[in-house]
Order: sequence, then structure tokens, then C-alpha cells
Amino acid sequence: MRWTIAARPNARELVAEDFEIDRNPPLGTLQDDDLRVAVLMLSCDPAQKGWMENVAGYAEPTEIGQTMPALGVGRVIESRSAGFAPGDLVQGLLGWADEMIVRASAMRKVRDEPDAPRLALGLLGSSGLTAYFGLTRIGVPQAGDVLVVTGAAGGVGSIVGQLGKIAGCRVIGIAGGPDKCRWLTEELGFDHAIDYKAEKVKARVRELAPEGIDVLWDNVGGQMLDDLLARIARKARVVICGGIARYQQQGRPPGPGSYFNIVFKSARMEGFLLGDFAEDHDIGRDRLRRWLAEGRIVQRDEVVDGLENAPQTLMRLFRGLNRGKLLIRVAE
Amino acid sequence: MRWTIAARPNARELVAEDFEIDRNPPLGTLQDDDLRVAVLMLSCDPAQKGWMENVAGYAEPTEIGQTMPALGVGRVIESRSAGFAPGDLVQGLLGWADEMIVRASAMRKVRDEPDAPRLALGLLGSSGLTAYFGLTRIGVPQAGDVLVVTGAAGGVGSIVGQLGKIAGCRVIGIAGGPDKCRWLTEELGFDHAIDYKAEKVKARVRELAPEGIDVLWDNVGGQMLDDLLARIARKARVVICGGIARYQQQGRPPGPGSYFNIVFKSARMEGFLLGDFAEDHDIGRDRLRRWLAEGRIVQRDEVVDGLENAPQTLMRLFRGLNRGKLLIRVAE
Repeated sequence: MRWTIAARPNARELVAEDFEIDRNPPLGTLQDDDLRVAVLMLSCDPAQKGWMENVAGYAEPTEIGQTMPALGVGRVIESRSAGFAPGDLVQGLLGWADEMIVRASAMRKVRDEPDAPRLALGLLGSSGLTAYFGLTRIGVPQAGDVLVVTGAAGGVGSIVGQLGKIAGCRVIGIAGGPDKCRWLTEELGFDHAIDYKAEKVKARVRELAPEGIDVLWDNVGGQMLDDLLARIARKARVVICGGIARYQQQGRPPGPGSYFNIVFKSARMEGFLLGDFAEDHDIGRDRLRRWLAEGRIVQRDEVVDGLENAPQTLMRLFRGLNRGKLLIRVAE
Repeated sequence: MRWTIAARPNARELVAEDFEIDRNPPLGTLQDDDLRVAVLMLSCDPAQKGWMENVAGYAEPTEIGQTMPALGVGRVIESRSAGFAPGDLVQGLLGWADEMIVRASAMRKVRDEPDAPRLALGLLGSSGLTAYFGLTRIGVPQAGDVLVVTGAAGGVGSIVGQLGKIAGCRVIGIAGGPDKCRWLTEELGFDHAIDYKAEKVKARVRELAPEGIDVLWDNVGGQMLDDLLARIARKARVVICGGIARYQQQGRPPGPGSYFNIVFKSARMEGFLLGDFAEDHDIGRDRLRRWLAEGRIVQRDEVVDGLENAPQTLMRLFRGLNRGKLLIRVAE
């Protein structure tokens, strides 16, 4: 079984009809350096909509009719690569399918530990590494800094805030709804949470951080980013990680009108791709694993069972319904 | 004689009625540490409109009825400071007046060399230092980089492009009108100039630099910045220096909708104030002076005679009519 891309959701919300189920996909045969992988767990990421849209810059172009791509973890069931044996746990770009043939060179072995698939796709995977490298290398938090995180209850945001606490920051998370906000402060240790659906973000940030924002981690864009740019402190670092606002409305949302505040504040706004730090991914993973073992950081995620639920699950992400990393369990 | 601020030009163009002439200003008396200065030359800077508007972050608040502030060079005619003697040439925040009383501690001595007032307000003053520090410390140009400069025919832009050539960049200037464009390539050594009034900037940049922009120096903002952000190269540095588009239209122009391209390109967008580099200003001034002596850089400016022409002259700046640094000569 697999799901294919049936339509490109450019400039509109994702809908169920963008995917088509294929209950009898071709099995395919292995070439040299190929692996046959049983898919165990799949990650839901905002970038997936960009992949479907063929947005430049992120990834390989997609085709209508191909298996919907997704980062995932699987177990090797057949190998034509010297580096992998049946039974190995692997991670990489997989897709919405219960079984796939992939190039061995594009896969990474995953340590077979308890909860390996969840961790490999969350804290020790692209979410955790994005949070780690974006924050340490671009945000460069200093003890005492005010760190504001938008989309704070998401897979990346929920880790960024925890890393900010480890770095000695005062952490303010912005999320939608009282449940998510309580979750941020009570379960993840954020100092404050602002419910953007009920509170005036700009005024509340002014109250909570009258001295301004030193590090702004933005997953959202749109009006939220604009409001927060107006509240940055001198020499602020603005880490642009995501732009979920771009996915939630027709056409391209306006840019941040208050961008010019980076001049008044001698501030920096910077983007990055996780691949920029590929050489250091092991360093990041080691640190995250240590903090996890020490209980200084937790992975709170949401796991939805069953590949048949993949489209509905990904739509939850764009509707902002998930708390923490959103995962699809395909098989145990 | 002096000009006072008569009205604040917030959210509209500057008009002659924003200033009031005062032919018999009070002479005033000197306190300890004061200097009486005969004003010789005044600088026209976009920031002056911000000062009149009391835009946060730039400077001391202004009051209606006060002398219009301007950076300038003058000669000391009376001193109550041990550090200054009559005859000394000084530079600092002066104003639209033929004579002023200022705090000695806010003034800097200027070397009495040929053309000292022009150079002190241009290449060796805030324009040159802004270009030097913004480009070297924020833009960090590398030999072979493509440098694009907006507002290239202005006081700062015309220096940025020349500094880019010294650093081994391929330099593309954007300016309004064929005269300015010819001036950039023929007199200042820019590799290319794009006339934004006659050419499609985005398409022309794609032609001239298909590999993308490595360093973008922006004096303009608005649609121009948005178009150029769509053409940046991987790891591009975007130096936000000015936002003259903000001065030319009612209300706040929309922000750059393509700001998110800094994620796809792992790029950086950064602002600065000249004061951030205050400790190193002498280093910058020495380098600029050496390149000037070697003929590797020139100051092409426009000097308008007579304090009575100050309002009209400053309005020229906001209408984009000047080529190079715009100066007002008050006295020889």
C-alpha cells in the first residue's frame, strides 16, 4: 500500500484529494546498492507541502503520481549494499508506503535502541537537529537572553524552547490555544506561553519582556513575525526557520513591514537549511542524546497509527492541531 | 541665520513648509565646554527625515522650533574647552545655521587638509564609514562575489560600489535614469548599472548575474528589495542600510514578501548603525584615506551653495535627484 501525489496544493490549503491511495503498488526489483525497506515510522513536516508544490531550493522535484515523500525510519528486509544487512534500522527520505526500494547511499543507519524510530524522527532527527543547529549556530543564545519561539508547540519549536532553557535563556513560547500553552509551561518548562488566539501578542511580549527579544525563533512568518520584529532588542538574532503562515492563506502573505527595525537595532535575520551543518550532525545528535539521558530535555510527540491515516494526519499539522512532533506509525 | 523645524513630515513627503527661516536667531552665550562654531559645510542624509519625525532608535528627539539638525563641519570661533582653539576645524552634529553653540565633547577635530569639509562629510565621514563598515563587517565581500547596490548613485551607494571593486567583486549598481547609470560605470568603475526607471530590475539582474547575488546592499527597500531577495545566491549577505522607499510613499511600504528566500538560500539579512563600529572608525578612515591617495576611490559629490537653499537641497535627496554625496556649502 502507498499514497501518491494526486495534485499540487500551490497557493491553497492541503486537501484529502491531493493524495491518492494505491493498494497494489508495483513491487519493483533491487539494483546494486538498493535496499528494500519496511517502513516503520514517518515524520510529518511543513516542508512536505513545499515538496508537493515543487518549491525551489528545498529538495528534488516531485512528480504527480509518485509516492508522497516523507522522512522516515524503516527496517531493511533485503539488501544489495555491502553496508547494510536485513534487520538494520535505517533513516532517510522514504515515503507514504509500507515498503519501499531506496538507494543505500541515501540512508543512514539508526542505533537500535528503545523508541528508536520516534527519537530518530524527533529529538535525534531533523526536528532536534534543526532546533539544535539553528539555535546554537544562528540564534547564538547567551545566558540571560530573552528567547521567543513562534509555533512553539510544534515538533521543532518544542525542542527550541527546551534548548533555550538549557542555555540559560528566559523562554517565551507562542502557540494557539490554552491547552498548548499549558503544555509548554507545565510539561516543557517554558517560562511563559502566549496564546495568540486569545491574547494580543505584541502587547503581551512587551509586558513579559520590556527589554525586548534577544533571540527570535520564527516558524510562522506573516503578521506574527511582523509584530515580533517590532519588539527586538539591540543586536537581536532572528532565526527564520519556517513560514507556516505561507501555507495557511491564499497567495503569498505580505513580508514583514517592520523588517527595517533590524537597522535601528543592529540586528540580524538569518535562514538556514539543516544540510548546512551536515558535517556536525553527529555532534548535535550526541549532545541531544546526553541531555535526553540526563532528563534535561524530553520528546513530547503525537503518534498516529496507520498509513491509511497519513493525509488526515499531515493536514492536522497545517491546521496547527498537533502538540509536539507529529508522527505516523506504519508498523511496529 | 538658521532654519527651524516647523512641522513633522511623518508618513508623507518632505515639503518646503516643514522648515521656517529665522534671520535673527538668538546668539546665546557659551557655558564651560562649549564652542561657538562657524558652520562651513552641511551634509544631506536620509536619516534627517527620521530625526524630524522622531523615529525611535536613531537619535535624540527633536522639537518643533529647534534648529534643523544636520551633520556638518565648522570652524571654531570661540572656545571654552581646553581641547579646542579658535581656528580649529571640527565635525559633528551641527544644524542648518551659519553659527552654532555646541558641546565640545560632541565634536571631533578634523585634519585641516585641502577639501577637508567635503571629505569629512563624504568619503571620510559618515557616508564613507557607513559604506566601509557595512560592507566589510556585514557584507563581508569575497573576491569573485557579485555585489548589487541599490541607490547606487547616492552618497553611500557610490562608495559601496567602489569598495566592492577594490575587494574584487563584480559590481552592479541600480539607479534611476541613464545619466546616473552612465556616471556609475564611466566615472566610478561599476561593472554594470541598471536603470530601474527604464529596465526590469529582476530580469536584468538574472541576465547579468545568473549565478545570483552574493552581497546585496540595500538603500531602498520596498518592491526593489523584494525583487532582489528573490535573486540571492546561497549564503548571501543582505546589508540593510537605508529604506528610501519608506520616505517616498504614504504610510509604511509592505515588507519584502520574498524574505523567506533567506531560508532556501541559507542567507543573512542584517542591519547596523555606524556607531556600532565607533572604536574602529579611525581604522576605516585611514584605509579610505589611503585608497583616496592611491586614486583607487574617488569622491564624486554635488555641492549646493548657500544655507538659504537648504530645504530645496534636502528635498532633492528624497526625490533622488543627486549624484553622489549631496552637500550644502554655508561658508568657505
